[in-house]
Amino acid sequence: MKKVAIGVDIGGTNTVMGIVDEKGKIISRKSMPTKTHPDYTIYMNSLVDALKRLVESCPDKIEILGIGVGAPNGNFYNGTIEFAPNLKFKGVVPVVDYIKEKFSYQTILLTNDANAAAIGEMIYGGAQNMKNFIMITLGTGVGSGIIVNGELVYGHDGFAGEIGHVIVDPNGRQCGCGRKGCLETYASAPGIKRTVFNLLSEMIEDSILRTYNYQDLSAKQIDEAARKGDPIAIKAFDFTGKMLGLTLANAIAHTSPEAIFLFGGLAQAENLIFDPVRKYTEHYLLNIYKEKVALLPSELPPGDAAILGSGALVWKEYKTGSV
Amino acid sequence: MKKVAIGVDIGGTNTVMGIVDEKGKIISRKSMPTKTHPDYTIYMNSLVDALKRLVESCPDKIEILGIGVGAPNGNFYNGTIEFAPNLKFKGVVPVVDYIKEKFSYQTILLTNDANAAAIGEMIYGGAQNMKNFIMITLGTGVGSGIIVNGELVYGHDGFAGEIGHVIVDPNGRQCGCGRKGCLETYASAPGIKRTVFNLLSEMIEDSILRTYNYQDLSAKQIDEAARKGDPIAIKAFDFTGKMLGLTLANAIAHTSPEAIFLFGGLAQAENLIFDPVRKYTEHYLLNIYKEKVALLPSELPPGDAAILGSGALVWKEYKTGSV
Repeated sequence: MKKVAIGVDIGGTNTVMGIVDEKGKIISRKSMPTKTHPDYTIYMNSLVDALKRLVESCPDKIEILGIGVGAPNGNFYNGTIEFAPNLKFKGVVPVVDYIKEKFSYQTILLTNDANAAAIGEMIYGGAQNMKNFIMITLGTGVGSGIIVNGELVYGHDGFAGEIGHVIVDPNGRQCGCGRKGCLETYASAPGIKRTVFNLLSEMIEDSILRTYNYQDLSAKQIDEAARKGDPIAIKAFDFTGKMLGLTLANAIAHTSPEAIFLFGGLAQAENLIFDPVRKYTEHYLLNIYKEKVALLPSELPPGDAAILGSGALVWKEYKTGSV
Repeated sequence: MKKVAIGVDIGGTNTVMGIVDEKGKIISRKSMPTKTHPDYTIYMNSLVDALKRLVESCPDKIEILGIGVGAPNGNFYNGTIEFAPNLKFKGVVPVVDYIKEKFSYQTILLTNDANAAAIGEMIYGGAQNMKNFIMITLGTGVGSGIIVNGELVYGHDGFAGEIGHVIVDPNGRQCGCGRKGCLETYASAPGIKRTVFNLLSEMIEDSILRTYNYQDLSAKQIDEAARKGDPIAIKAFDFTGKMLGLTLANAIAHTSPEAIFLFGGLAQAENLIFDPVRKYTEHYLLNIYKEKVALLPSELPPGDAAILGSGALVWKEYKTGSV
């Protein structure tokens, strides 16, 4: 029988799930809204129903090894989502316990979405031969997963790896977490927009970006403007690279990885973001680390990454006996 | 036969070595100058001679498990000292290979001095029941050793854990490493002196510290002044705690340790340093980590810590099969 894993990604808007084989092929997939379920027991019932339908949709000859779940503020040790600011259900949500009541698979695991992406990169992506690397997810927020000696770093409480909330400038921008100057306020999609608006105030050059209001401007439009040579857009990418490069240089001084992978919307800006991040990371690196750490785009297909990462949680456990 | 390990600490001025039993008792010890040996082959010959005399000085009934060496810029994977700015011998020094030629013990290991201190804390000190913690050594420089899942983090190249060279302020003080604003320029013994001289320029309060020239002022004198209520000295400790607390809050966002240990001269200032470091670490911490991480003084006896830490390298390997 073909062995497969189920991957579930709980996002603020939608929950996606799929059946993933050993090579990272998604055999079957489903999605359901997260947002419309303010109460988590109703949500969990819907999720369990969707999972049952997902399993039923599959050919007979599969053996399901388990279910992996990626979620914001997911705690690996407790199998819970804890106080996730971007989800409607508040407090501590015992996701793994709930799924365990309904399914008898041996492996049912949960972690945060960026950690799941890191494990996905290790099982299916560009980090298949790496033991020490860092995954950075650049989306609406900035997440990270740190791999040391082939294992994800969970820390003593299951919450390690929040590089998006490293403070780059203690007098910097207000962050949604209540503090100031977190990397996320600079290197996320809303972060580069904030940078553009600051640069519009500081610079005098003409720019297509002067025609957008704050609400309407998207990171994609900044990307397009930069590709056309817009000076403000180019400067915005450079500044984003500076803040991210400084933070990555400091992260390297912690775990000395052989590579850092960038994933998510901003990473798709290709050289526009990779060139400045590389330049500033090298600039801020301590001598002993210089020219040793590869900065790479994630090799996970963007549309499948969330499901692959969560499914990889199960595959990692199956292959090595540890996640 | 009583099992013992040999610990060697190579410092800029002196090299100390000792025979350490399982409980952390130093049975016999020796020291020799490092500084007077500009050439490393001459130094290594002297070191081997001293080690032989150390072994001969011991009672018959011991079984030596191996030799552990702590050294600045020590690379665990290669067993080398690489480009250590504070040692006279330059380039790459193959310490472990050299010792292996002269001694037949199975275990001969080398790492940097702060990593050795971290392992010492885990084997003999306050971290005996901890799997995730960070050791910070506050001396002439600032070093660190990061423990994740009971193992020291060496990274892909053996150089992980340089929190002393995390950049706290990219526009900050010139560091000996050639960059600006490293933690070491604030939280070392010379760092707090630099802070005092900056505060002497900024503040107008009377202070005993106005009577010292830069060359003569020591961290110990700043400590003594602060204990007598000197406003500049107290402010200097507060500022040091702020820079260290910010860096520790960011370090916690990487590996989420259950405790951080402070070791070294500045740590002996007790509440003068621990109070502000605790205050600012909590202030800068992301919510999910708040009030979870203990800030503790190292429990290694200062005079023995270097030998204990290096000896612990061998004990760690003997007890767990990994360092």
